[in-house]
Amino acid sequence: MSFEARLRDIVGANHVITDGDLSAWELDWRKRWRGRARAVVRPASTIEVAAVVRACAAAGVALVPQGGNTGLVGGGVPDDSGTQVLLSLTRLNRVRSIDAANLAMTVDAGCVLQAVQEAAAAQQLLFPLSLAAEGSCTIGGNLATNAGGTQVLRFGNARDLCLGLEVVTAQGEVWDGLSGLRKDNTGYDLRDLYIGSEGTLGIITAATLKLYPQPAAVTTAVATPPTLESAVGLLALAQARLGAGLTGFEVMNEFSLGLVRRHFPQLTQPLAPAPWTVLLEQSDNEGAEHATALFEGLLETALERGLITDAAVAANLEQSHTMWHLRESIPLAQSLEGLNIKHDISVPVSRVAAFVAATDAALARRIPGVRLVDFGHLGDGNLHYNVQAPDGEDAAAFLRDREGEINDLVYDAVAAHGGSISAEHGVGLLKREELAQRKSPVALRTMRAIKQALDPSGLLNPGRVL
Amino acid sequence: MSFEARLRDIVGANHVITDGDLSAWELDWRKRWRGRARAVVRPASTIEVAAVVRACAAAGVALVPQGGNTGLVGGGVPDDSGTQVLLSLTRLNRVRSIDAANLAMTVDAGCVLQAVQEAAAAQQLLFPLSLAAEGSCTIGGNLATNAGGTQVLRFGNARDLCLGLEVVTAQGEVWDGLSGLRKDNTGYDLRDLYIGSEGTLGIITAATLKLYPQPAAVTTAVATPPTLESAVGLLALAQARLGAGLTGFEVMNEFSLGLVRRHFPQLTQPLAPAPWTVLLEQSDNEGAEHATALFEGLLETALERGLITDAAVAANLEQSHTMWHLRESIPLAQSLEGLNIKHDISVPVSRVAAFVAATDAALARRIPGVRLVDFGHLGDGNLHYNVQAPDGEDAAAFLRDREGEINDLVYDAVAAHGGSISAEHGVGLLKREELAQRKSPVALRTMRAIKQALDPSGLLNPGRVL
Repeated sequence: MSFEARLRDIVGANHVITDGDLSAWELDWRKRWRGRARAVVRPASTIEVAAVVRACAAAGVALVPQGGNTGLVGGGVPDDSGTQVLLSLTRLNRVRSIDAANLAMTVDAGCVLQAVQEAAAAQQLLFPLSLAAEGSCTIGGNLATNAGGTQVLRFGNARDLCLGLEVVTAQGEVWDGLSGLRKDNTGYDLRDLYIGSEGTLGIITAATLKLYPQPAAVTTAVATPPTLESAVGLLALAQARLGAGLTGFEVMNEFSLGLVRRHFPQLTQPLAPAPWTVLLEQSDNEGAEHATALFEGLLETALERGLITDAAVAANLEQSHTMWHLRESIPLAQSLEGLNIKHDISVPVSRVAAFVAATDAALARRIPGVRLVDFGHLGDGNLHYNVQAPDGEDAAAFLRDREGEINDLVYDAVAAHGGSISAEHGVGLLKREELAQRKSPVALRTMRAIKQALDPSGLLNPGRVL
Repeated sequence: MSFEARLRDIVGANHVITDGDLSAWELDWRKRWRGRARAVVRPASTIEVAAVVRACAAAGVALVPQGGNTGLVGGGVPDDSGTQVLLSLTRLNRVRSIDAANLAMTVDAGCVLQAVQEAAAAQQLLFPLSLAAEGSCTIGGNLATNAGGTQVLRFGNARDLCLGLEVVTAQGEVWDGLSGLRKDNTGYDLRDLYIGSEGTLGIITAATLKLYPQPAAVTTAVATPPTLESAVGLLALAQARLGAGLTGFEVMNEFSLGLVRRHFPQLTQPLAPAPWTVLLEQSDNEGAEHATALFEGLLETALERGLITDAAVAANLEQSHTMWHLRESIPLAQSLEGLNIKHDISVPVSRVAAFVAATDAALARRIPGVRLVDFGHLGDGNLHYNVQAPDGEDAAAFLRDREGEINDLVYDAVAAHGGSISAEHGVGLLKREELAQRKSPVALRTMRAIKQALDPSGLLNPGRVL
């Protein structure tokens, strides 16, 4: 039996796709990497995934696992050799069980994040992971890349929201590590090793996720700190006053919000333009009135202390949505403005202001007129520090000619401030070489030893991460 | 140069101890395992730890790392061969730095947990890990065993409180994975692999820890649910009402509290004896008055719904301490009552009541008059389900003759309820064979492959975990 026939035997002829337009699987979301798959294989169960992996292992064929294909670093599309099998997990899309009394649910890896959120909400529970691609990304991809998003300040990354995993190993065995336990110290933490390994150590087929009671009210506020340092001061004040009630703390520089004004003039901005605007989100167990009173007390103190010059608390859900909508429109406004050089970096919160001051100045010296779209999850020290060509310059040429030089400058500054060159997007293809340059040699050797131990033939997502 | 001379050369002659009474290092806290070390070596720095490891590797000598020697599973004492070096980390005891604005601190592995808590408190910050041995256990040991304790419900296990590690590898290299970052997706999660590996994959020499703002008030309450099921119902209600404000939820059966009354008659128990008593702890960002009002509202609703029959809210700090003191006196009261068979198990919160009902009944059938000291962290599904000989029976003989049979019964029940045989104490020597029997073969193979990859000569804490 040929290799393709064996695959058809496992998943059914309809689910082994070799002809026609495969760009839904072969082209990444940013349209930056276009590969060519030997076949797209769409198993419907963990058993089928395991059988596909065994067939690939027997034939020495490499596998690239893919969820919603929304990754930003080229980790989920095949290379252009035409030899790799693209393993799409999207048919594994059942919510297996919800245990409300244990605040846990078990779902297939191919479930779309939003479907997971909705299944929890149907039980009056909260699955807090939230990010821009939630309408199409899958929970398996979220876990494989340890996705971040807007709720990390309170609930942590995808890693922190996972109690257990089911994984198909490189040998095609199924590890049933699904678990509803909050405490389990029986051996090495395989769960967290697979999480964030971008499909290079095993294929996540299901996960048990943490749920939370839904808060009684969620409300937002915006405020304008005179400097980025005062924004960090406001964060500390908000954390002390609201504790775990502070569920979001985003920052946007004036150029980011200016782009939103330019490209989405219909969106109302609640405060006058200022160098920095922050968005605070509070989740309250008592109710909207209590939340608003806490917000008002907090912002009053911040005004008195000079940490902010102006503020507005959302009076209702619609105003809350408007505030978030402004923040979430930045990436699109930025795209409409033209290509740019994206960074997903983090530094300790205490060093964010110094990092931005130093890096802004160095870039301005190097590239007069450079424009910086600087926004992100300040509460986590995570900035999308994006660099746009000077007004009037050709954006495509700028990206082509200056990306390497700008990355060097930005990543050197990140390193100097104790930061990471990939906060929440992963390594994939995009940052693999950078990682090999910048990660400690001991860490790289340890990572390679683990890869060699778990996937000695190197068939799982080769050429990614390491 | 002899091996011992080489060690003296590295750490100084005073810190290589081969003669005299070594029981402080060779005998475990429970006095269950007494080994014999070739030498006790006490390095003072990471550099010295690395040099000791290289010397051991060159000589083919195995190493057993040890912190405060408070472990409960025999993971930190040498075997009785007289060939192993006992590596004591207690001289690595500096708080390296505290970054209040980043809510993080970096400490040496040998820092005593209480010293870490106090260093945070001196900056008006909270390091929430808290457990019975905190006056003598070290943070390195806490991380090597992924310790739990009383604050897991809100803050997670030791793993969840760690941002980064410094580790000496089996090859004697130093991995500087210290980090103040909340988000970092640059490669495999080595941090969490070392955490909980009980010194078998590398030696933790320092850690960056998460800190939190101190709450404005911490207050406690006790309540008597008529059944364990109602206790779980109270937990759900408290989680919905208090959210992250609920920082502790402990349960004690009547026999546990009866032992406290018998052995510590001077301690006042606030409520009349009942089958189950729960202790709730609330940490509040607004203040004691707000916390008390929330507690009273919660307990009133619980009374109305029949989830509890009686309750008392601590009126002041002293009453809070008394409530915790009762809970914390159970292990000692139990020791005074005589030897017993200890279990540190977890099941999903939703299955705790069914597990206890089934296991209590099965034990009572098998051993008429058996006494169960059942208490623990109900919020995490973690019970110390301890079995005491029937009144009047010889406790030592009971332990000797029936431990195997009772463990089988309890662990079979744990497995049937989707639980873990080691929730927060680790595997060590005590549960190694049980783990080999009960863990999935795929997980065991994966763990062994990792051990082989990272410590191919098997010199780090041999015979533990795997």
